[in-house]
Amino acid sequence: MVEPANTVGIPLNHAALLRDELDIVIPTIRNLDFLEMWRPFLQPYHLIIVQDGDPSKTIAVPEGFDYELYNRNDINRILGPKASCISFKDSACRCFGYMVSKKKYIFTIDDDCFVAKDPSGKAVNALEQHIKNLLCPSSPLFFNTLYDPYREGADFVRGYPFSLREGVSTAVSHGLWLNIPDYDAPTQLVKPKERNTRYVDAVMTIPKGTLFPMCGMNLAFDRDLIGPAMYFGLMGDGQPIGRYDDMWAGWCVKVICDHLGLGVKTGLPYIYHSKASNPFVNLKKEYKGIFWQEDIIPFFQSAKLSKEAVTVQQCYIELSKMVKEKLSAIDPYFDKLADAMVTWIEAWDELNPATKA
Amino acid sequence: MVEPANTVGIPLNHAALLRDELDIVIPTIRNLDFLEMWRPFLQPYHLIIVQDGDPSKTIAVPEGFDYELYNRNDINRILGPKASCISFKDSACRCFGYMVSKKKYIFTIDDDCFVAKDPSGKAVNALEQHIKNLLCPSSPLFFNTLYDPYREGADFVRGYPFSLREGVSTAVSHGLWLNIPDYDAPTQLVKPKERNTRYVDAVMTIPKGTLFPMCGMNLAFDRDLIGPAMYFGLMGDGQPIGRYDDMWAGWCVKVICDHLGLGVKTGLPYIYHSKASNPFVNLKKEYKGIFWQEDIIPFFQSAKLSKEAVTVQQCYIELSKMVKEKLSAIDPYFDKLADAMVTWIEAWDELNPATKA
Repeated sequence: MVEPANTVGIPLNHAALLRDELDIVIPTIRNLDFLEMWRPFLQPYHLIIVQDGDPSKTIAVPEGFDYELYNRNDINRILGPKASCISFKDSACRCFGYMVSKKKYIFTIDDDCFVAKDPSGKAVNALEQHIKNLLCPSSPLFFNTLYDPYREGADFVRGYPFSLREGVSTAVSHGLWLNIPDYDAPTQLVKPKERNTRYVDAVMTIPKGTLFPMCGMNLAFDRDLIGPAMYFGLMGDGQPIGRYDDMWAGWCVKVICDHLGLGVKTGLPYIYHSKASNPFVNLKKEYKGIFWQEDIIPFFQSAKLSKEAVTVQQCYIELSKMVKEKLSAIDPYFDKLADAMVTWIEAWDELNPATKA
Repeated sequence: MVEPANTVGIPLNHAALLRDELDIVIPTIRNLDFLEMWRPFLQPYHLIIVQDGDPSKTIAVPEGFDYELYNRNDINRILGPKASCISFKDSACRCFGYMVSKKKYIFTIDDDCFVAKDPSGKAVNALEQHIKNLLCPSSPLFFNTLYDPYREGADFVRGYPFSLREGVSTAVSHGLWLNIPDYDAPTQLVKPKERNTRYVDAVMTIPKGTLFPMCGMNLAFDRDLIGPAMYFGLMGDGQPIGRYDDMWAGWCVKVICDHLGLGVKTGLPYIYHSKASNPFVNLKKEYKGIFWQEDIIPFFQSAKLSKEAVTVQQCYIELSKMVKEKLSAIDPYFDKLADAMVTWIEAWDELNPATKA
């Protein structure tokens, strides 16, 4: 369970689910050798590679993969002045890939994530499980004690209201990690040897009104339903904070999903996370976030969107105004972030005119 | 996993956790042969057996167990006119056992529940896991994607606010069931052959503000923290409804736990549930509940207790008034139930004078 799976010999999945409706977004600064292990599962799909850092560097992609690659020069060229909303030298740059995709679904994965094995030793096709999660409903309005009622062998338990059993559309599927858990720098420092070996065979809906820490390492979503809210903020180069890109997106996404009646699932699939990042470097990136989040989370917990906000874009613009009004007092950074949120939506609508309200 | 465990040869647990602070409450109408299988785990503890139905019948208890047994005559003698709040011919009568206990913790189990096996084939000591759940905190204010952060090998993930990591006291531990799942009559009728074979190795906190369907089959709680709210209502003989006793308790308990800042956990431990009850009989008992719950659940979802309600008893009396005011319109039954809720608290306080506010 703590060893990555050996996928040698697994035949290429030619009948890949949703192969024409899903893009895989990978932010990276290095050659994508990690894709070799994923080949049986991911090769049928189109990749959008967002190259971070030095644009003159060449990123090698294993043969046989169908991909488009964007470096910083491409981002600047495509977005012009609006490129300011896309982070540099931080994996937050991945959200540019969400914007340029023309597909309904996105799966995003980090380049230090490998194929996990389930307890029986079978290689986990993470993307297939994400697709299952996204294609079946969520149940955010009441808790089901036997986890996802839509999975085979499960159902709603006694006492679950029948009027809620149709569920709601699932917008986000949040996968987990074996081996190196997604800990913050202080926890990494305190527990340097902790590894996640517990394979929990469950998918569940995060209840309405409950926020969660969304990790961008192994994540899938329905672009049509929630894409414009999947902005990973201003992180990295020139910014006072890092490693909060996915958290920021997760808070915004959950508030908007709750408002629009969409579901967020977490649990399966696992990936095998190979390499702990340096906790000292992480601490430097995170430390402002660690105290800012004590104010940001109550802000999102009490954020109420208006009835007039019926599209993701409208919700997101409302949220940006609330950020400017309520969070700028913490640090001028939030003023800048609120502006970037607006720029992001403008850029999104420019590249995706069909999704306009 | 779908076979009950063979506990033969497991030595008696002489160092049983909390043996002087926990009572096991069992409602029954038959001989308690099922305890044989539980002997290694449960024999060190004191049992409170609540005999339902004909009080002249003798219930046989396997040798070596320490117990007290109450039949209907005992309940009537002890509570006098207040005995009207204790259901007859329904397992709801079990809550009498919670009232007469003098211990801090209660574990309650049905007599058709056997010892489950974990995926490695090891017999699951359900009570031990319940005690672990109750003795470590809950995290209802923010979702932890790696499940219970207090379990060995787990922790809070990146992005979890540090101010919330102490958690809150756990009041309830809700265990699950392998083999026969806890389905309502319509689901039983539609899926007569469905068995739960999925062992999910997780314990989690049910978030604040989220209701859940609490099953009384395999349940433990802290009597000092939440006991007076564990009233299983008026069910069975002379009542228009059955099989909603634990649901009723669960709705009340969750609203009060949320108000008082207490935690409710669900997940491990599993028991092996051996026998599906008759779906036709169940349908007759449940059918009013099936449509009533469509109104009851929104009622509990919006129930707000006052700041003045600082004890469980005060919360429960407030809730009884709201039930009378808001639910009596559904059916006169709720008027009677609201009165019984008050009687229950009066009886509780009479038998437990020390816990009075």
